[in-house]
Amino acid sequence: MEARKISLPESELPRRWYNIQADMPTPLEPPLHPGTGQPAGPEDLAPIFPMALIEQEVSRERFIDIPEEVLEKYLIWRPTPLYRARGLEKFLDTPARIYFKNEGVSPAGSHKPNTAIAQAYYNKTAGTKRITTETGAGQWGSALSMGCALFGLECKVYMVKISYEQKPYRRIMMETWGANCVPSPSMETKAGQQILAENPDSPGSLGIAISEAVEAAVTGENSKYSLGSVLNHVLLHQTVNGLECQKQMAIAGDYPDVIIGCAGGGSNFAGLALPFVRDKINGKQIDIIAVEPTSCPTMTRGPFAYDFGDTVQMTPLLAMHTLGHSFVPEPIHAGGLRYHGMAPIVSQLILDELIRPEAVPQLETFQAGITMARTEGFISAPETDHAVAMVIREAVKAKEEGKEKVILFNWSGHGLVDMAAYEAYLSGKLADHALPEEEIKRALGDIAPLPKPSQYNPGTVG
Amino acid sequence: MEARKISLPESELPRRWYNIQADMPTPLEPPLHPGTGQPAGPEDLAPIFPMALIEQEVSRERFIDIPEEVLEKYLIWRPTPLYRARGLEKFLDTPARIYFKNEGVSPAGSHKPNTAIAQAYYNKTAGTKRITTETGAGQWGSALSMGCALFGLECKVYMVKISYEQKPYRRIMMETWGANCVPSPSMETKAGQQILAENPDSPGSLGIAISEAVEAAVTGENSKYSLGSVLNHVLLHQTVNGLECQKQMAIAGDYPDVIIGCAGGGSNFAGLALPFVRDKINGKQIDIIAVEPTSCPTMTRGPFAYDFGDTVQMTPLLAMHTLGHSFVPEPIHAGGLRYHGMAPIVSQLILDELIRPEAVPQLETFQAGITMARTEGFISAPETDHAVAMVIREAVKAKEEGKEKVILFNWSGHGLVDMAAYEAYLSGKLADHALPEEEIKRALGDIAPLPKPSQYNPGTVG
Repeated sequence: MEARKISLPESELPRRWYNIQADMPTPLEPPLHPGTGQPAGPEDLAPIFPMALIEQEVSRERFIDIPEEVLEKYLIWRPTPLYRARGLEKFLDTPARIYFKNEGVSPAGSHKPNTAIAQAYYNKTAGTKRITTETGAGQWGSALSMGCALFGLECKVYMVKISYEQKPYRRIMMETWGANCVPSPSMETKAGQQILAENPDSPGSLGIAISEAVEAAVTGENSKYSLGSVLNHVLLHQTVNGLECQKQMAIAGDYPDVIIGCAGGGSNFAGLALPFVRDKINGKQIDIIAVEPTSCPTMTRGPFAYDFGDTVQMTPLLAMHTLGHSFVPEPIHAGGLRYHGMAPIVSQLILDELIRPEAVPQLETFQAGITMARTEGFISAPETDHAVAMVIREAVKAKEEGKEKVILFNWSGHGLVDMAAYEAYLSGKLADHALPEEEIKRALGDIAPLPKPSQYNPGTVG
Repeated sequence: MEARKISLPESELPRRWYNIQADMPTPLEPPLHPGTGQPAGPEDLAPIFPMALIEQEVSRERFIDIPEEVLEKYLIWRPTPLYRARGLEKFLDTPARIYFKNEGVSPAGSHKPNTAIAQAYYNKTAGTKRITTETGAGQWGSALSMGCALFGLECKVYMVKISYEQKPYRRIMMETWGANCVPSPSMETKAGQQILAENPDSPGSLGIAISEAVEAAVTGENSKYSLGSVLNHVLLHQTVNGLECQKQMAIAGDYPDVIIGCAGGGSNFAGLALPFVRDKINGKQIDIIAVEPTSCPTMTRGPFAYDFGDTVQMTPLLAMHTLGHSFVPEPIHAGGLRYHGMAPIVSQLILDELIRPEAVPQLETFQAGITMARTEGFISAPETDHAVAMVIREAVKAKEEGKEKVILFNWSGHGLVDMAAYEAYLSGKLADHALPEEEIKRALGDIAPLPKPSQYNPGTVG
């Protein structure tokens, strides 16, 4: 009988995260203070993050030890299995060998707990009593709620109001794990009050929710803020997945020619890809593809520039591919891929041609998800379907070229809490959204091409 | 670092199912034909089931080979991990060592695919083109839809109308796997038409849905019917789980003193328990507990009698614990535990004092689920919470008695598609339902205590 998946024993759980900053051909541009436009130092970040995470954000150490307490919690679902997609291969009649890493086995159903657990731990040891965060569709908010429950921390989640009302299941997951989740804008913060005074019916936005969560962290007692993607330390934590995967591919006796992941803020993609990017820097031939929606083409059409992480310009400026902090994409069903920016690490690696971005339209992604469900059994999150769509393109290409090829992708989460998106697709209510050039130009009006920090004038931004 | 879970490699997947009929101290009473009241033979069942499943239903072979094609599909998620519930143990401060088998890692999120895959396979090889079934809340319907997708069969699901309307996520899962799911009663069958003529607003019931699914199988071309619990062959397929678990407990170096599972129709419980029941028959001391809701106390308060499997008296009569085929329990949130009868195998083993039934009230089960989520991470299905509640009782007892004890339970599925139930609990909208004696008496009015088949007069039933 042919093997379908490669499981690692608990003893093979990686004991260290991999930090790509040790190996990047071009070092990262520093984050800039939103007020002064000068490089932001640890003291600028200390009000919102514990020092251990700030240190990880700027570290150049190649490997960083995973604390024992984090390893213990990782064992709740890690190591995750690596699958050979035999059903999909057979259906596509492709000479490609397709592998996927199943991150959907975590209690929250996605890769997000890889960093939620770590962030909860570092906050716990720093004396934080309460973590605040924002969430859109709720995947991150639910993962952080679980992390906080396991470390005995309070968790406060500002959930974009329209999602809060339309997608109750993730909110209830948060509450089941003991978190307090409120619709944003709320009356609990000055930022929220201000928005509601102007527009009592505001449906909210991720930008507003970030403002509320940051304000609540800065003004609250023993409170810190937490972000679920984009930042260097978040990507660092996610590398536990890629490191496991390298061991599993070795057991399989294969090595990937192509690596694929979907990218919203960039963390699930980077978690799988970065340890292989290191191999590529060291001479391996790999095509490493980050996949985004055509309706939010941050990597494929946004310039590399300094921009804010949030709409209301409170966060440090990050050097990244961005569509501009005021960009509002079409309401596509992959909520996790609607962010205007991209992780600085992923952005820089694209510039250095170590990662290749691609955009796929919405309908193709759901069709790919249906194909995967009917051949492999698993129903993917709509975000994950972007990776599946690109895998199918590559597998079909391999067939046309008559080439053997090893494709590896990150199956970042299941879609069982996202079935409304499949309903919309199956009933023919979805459309593709290719973004007109003028919309991109308008969105880009409020950012500037990347200057050197010393030349930087925050007045040109926003 | 302490081990948290024991994973088996794919090579350790059991190659045979265990058939308890080879070892039962008291053989099963035969099913009776609903019309004649005489023992039903294979020819009576042939219109609705393929012959291979009918043979399994009556087989006395101790082990039955699992076909290669079924093993291949099992590998999509099997072997499933056995967990040591260290977080729960610590929280309860108990000397008990608590283990649970995680059946929630299947694509459908529960144990149901163990038999769905097998039934789809046997139907496929028998030339069936389409399988019909009924579903309440949708756990079974979704699992069978997946099984049919993987074997290229059509699947038709009659879903109780009130659930169809209130719980769309499971229905969309079925459609994603390519099944056709309609609300029952429907206009597609005579049974449905009849009900709708009498009551156009009928909310449906499992009994009605069974009638529709059986009618559709009997009248449809190349169609067979499928049941997700209760029957002997269904329990047989589920034993793959208990057989894995025996290997895993041996690796852990422990053996259970107590085994716990929730029981609606009885299949997830039996799947874990039956291989250990064999050990008990052979002299091992184990307390094996089947847990049901106090609002549907089939095992703890229903007599052992011949009764119909459905409300409209179309199915064969089965000798089982039953509350009467007209029994309608309170609308509790564990939809899978609202069945009036219990698997004949489980029922007989209760009579023979090899299995001990217990009933727990609804609020206790959700409180247990919350405790589990916040200590172990995983959110259980409401059905599974019945097992968790009993585990907590046993662990607290162990503490009070100062006794070491090994508790093993079946974590039959996750609750991520059942979050509305947690919402109801967390917002204080749920109540306990202990069943008044007179309601039980009324329900029992339409069944008779078990006669020998030869003395059986169907006129006394229904």
